[in-house]
Amino acid sequence: MDEATLSPLCWHGDAETGVLRLLDQRALPREERWIECRTAQEVATAIQDMIVRGAPAIGLAGAYGMVLAARGPAAPPAPSPRAGARRSGTGAVPGPAPSTGLSRARDLLATARPTAVNLVWAVDKLASAAREDPSPARLLSLARALHEDDIAGNRRMAALGAARIESGMGVLTHCNAGALATGGIGTALGVLWEAHRQGKRIHVYADETRPRLQGARLTAWELSRRGIPHTLVCDGAAASLMARGRIQLVVTGADRIAANGDAANKIGTYSVAVNARFHAIPFHVAAPAATFDLALPDGRGIPIEERSEEEVTAWGGERTCPAQTHATNPAFDVTPAALIRSIFTDRGEVDPVGREAIARVLGSASR
Amino acid sequence: MDEATLSPLCWHGDAETGVLRLLDQRALPREERWIECRTAQEVATAIQDMIVRGAPAIGLAGAYGMVLAARGPAAPPAPSPRAGARRSGTGAVPGPAPSTGLSRARDLLATARPTAVNLVWAVDKLASAAREDPSPARLLSLARALHEDDIAGNRRMAALGAARIESGMGVLTHCNAGALATGGIGTALGVLWEAHRQGKRIHVYADETRPRLQGARLTAWELSRRGIPHTLVCDGAAASLMARGRIQLVVTGADRIAANGDAANKIGTYSVAVNARFHAIPFHVAAPAATFDLALPDGRGIPIEERSEEEVTAWGGERTCPAQTHATNPAFDVTPAALIRSIFTDRGEVDPVGREAIARVLGSASR
Repeated sequence: MDEATLSPLCWHGDAETGVLRLLDQRALPREERWIECRTAQEVATAIQDMIVRGAPAIGLAGAYGMVLAARGPAAPPAPSPRAGARRSGTGAVPGPAPSTGLSRARDLLATARPTAVNLVWAVDKLASAAREDPSPARLLSLARALHEDDIAGNRRMAALGAARIESGMGVLTHCNAGALATGGIGTALGVLWEAHRQGKRIHVYADETRPRLQGARLTAWELSRRGIPHTLVCDGAAASLMARGRIQLVVTGADRIAANGDAANKIGTYSVAVNARFHAIPFHVAAPAATFDLALPDGRGIPIEERSEEEVTAWGGERTCPAQTHATNPAFDVTPAALIRSIFTDRGEVDPVGREAIARVLGSASR
Repeated sequence: MDEATLSPLCWHGDAETGVLRLLDQRALPREERWIECRTAQEVATAIQDMIVRGAPAIGLAGAYGMVLAARGPAAPPAPSPRAGARRSGTGAVPGPAPSTGLSRARDLLATARPTAVNLVWAVDKLASAAREDPSPARLLSLARALHEDDIAGNRRMAALGAARIESGMGVLTHCNAGALATGGIGTALGVLWEAHRQGKRIHVYADETRPRLQGARLTAWELSRRGIPHTLVCDGAAASLMARGRIQLVVTGADRIAANGDAANKIGTYSVAVNARFHAIPFHVAAPAATFDLALPDGRGIPIEERSEEEVTAWGGERTCPAQTHATNPAFDVTPAALIRSIFTDRGEVDPVGREAIARVLGSASR
């Protein structure tokens, strides 16, 4: 693994025979296990199962998934009779043309998870390019370019965000918005790494982030690997750390940001933002332009993924609550723009957060 | 188990040869396992290990522990050389008189956990009575009286609190302030049970309550046993439920309440209270007079127990974060009086929450 990026995904080999390698993030920090995807279906399943997760990272995985789909013969199988019942006929065509395979792969990948808009954005970039040239080589070249852009964008966000960090600060983050969530050094954690690299003395408080513990498993792992002083806390303890003066700034990632600045991120982020406001602590978001969904006027339109109850009701296969008890498990929540001090993007800092500043900053270069 | 109370502790037998039976709450909901304590030391260890937990329940356990200590010969052993190094000599007295044993048991039990003041209160009630009559029979009679008082007090709180609950409400609670935390039907959950018994249609949202999951393991178990409709949620999801209009009222227990109304309760309660305020949802506390510590002018003086890091960094003995990562694990936080709409006590409702109303309500009968 490349220590500079701790990258969770890489393409191995050429366009015609290569594979997408994914770090199985479910096994961290216990084990660094890589899996190989050879079809778009395998990539979609890996995204659903959260082998790869994080809005920018699943966007890139989706892009590489389109390269795999472009090979034609290995295109995803026709929908099963059950799943395809409403579109009878379309699955029965023998030997689909690459473009049919790509169109099906596009739908499969773009809908693997609903909340992060980066996934749709990246897959559609590839689908659009494929209409002119559906060759795997052309699509691999484009996917690699998106990956390079993400790396460069992370660095720009990090530089912007680090300017807000002062030596001596305690900084809280929620979930994992690090290298493992992106193609580069991360969004929120990229900011913190850059501040640390600049010699600023910071202490990071990482919310463990129930139910999947990305803070404990992934963020703490990245902070350990980078030698950044940190402390793990239960999500419920963050407010008390704020009250005790241990937190001077909060920074998180985002999965989808509406045109007005309302930002969806991992469940629990909104609670942190409300508490930050109550304690007059600035709450920042770091996210690339690809995370913005300007078609949505505000956060009410953001689809919130409801994941399996078992993520809440069981641990390691054993139930922690009675058999009759049900859970609700929204995977994301929406933090209103009014609670966000600024957004660090790869195009510049959105400050103050609102429709105008977003349009101005995102309009500063073509998407 | 008595379905009416789901009581987590009971005295079995007479004063001279009886035992304190405790429901091992660490094993719930998987298994209903009872353990027997025959010495004050065993009771203190059970409190430390959270076999029995909840402010009123550990107070009662402490009281019964004093009965066990009053038997003399079975008084707790002298402090080990290591623990007793600073008080050399005191541990060497052979065959301590009951009063010495009781004094030592008092210290052992009263300091088993630091935050809940009910423990000190109950143990000191017994220690004080023992100065006049240290017989096990006399102390058992007093411990039983405290237990009966707790049962009756729970019912009074429940009636007061239920008056605040309206049919159709979604009610959030945090941790477990139910029968398992008391000698009776519970404090916060007693309120909800009473509302349910009165035929009000309520839906309870139970925070799972990391790190020890008392919400998932204990509150959901009680709600299931009582047939109260409920949904389990991760602590981080409560704010988003509030934003979506699913919560109309919050009620929790408390472990220690200062003279001004600042209330310590399970870690995460403060975050819930801040979010309730942000969403204009009333936040109530239910706690008996024994939970008030009028010697403390405000919450700053409440000792906050810091528990083992492993409660956060591991699950079932397996680490969830890197070996180098440390955690902070404050077991309680303090919700300022200003965030509390009212406090249901066994003496009446404290409303508005403040020094005057507390003095008036608690002064309405002798403690």
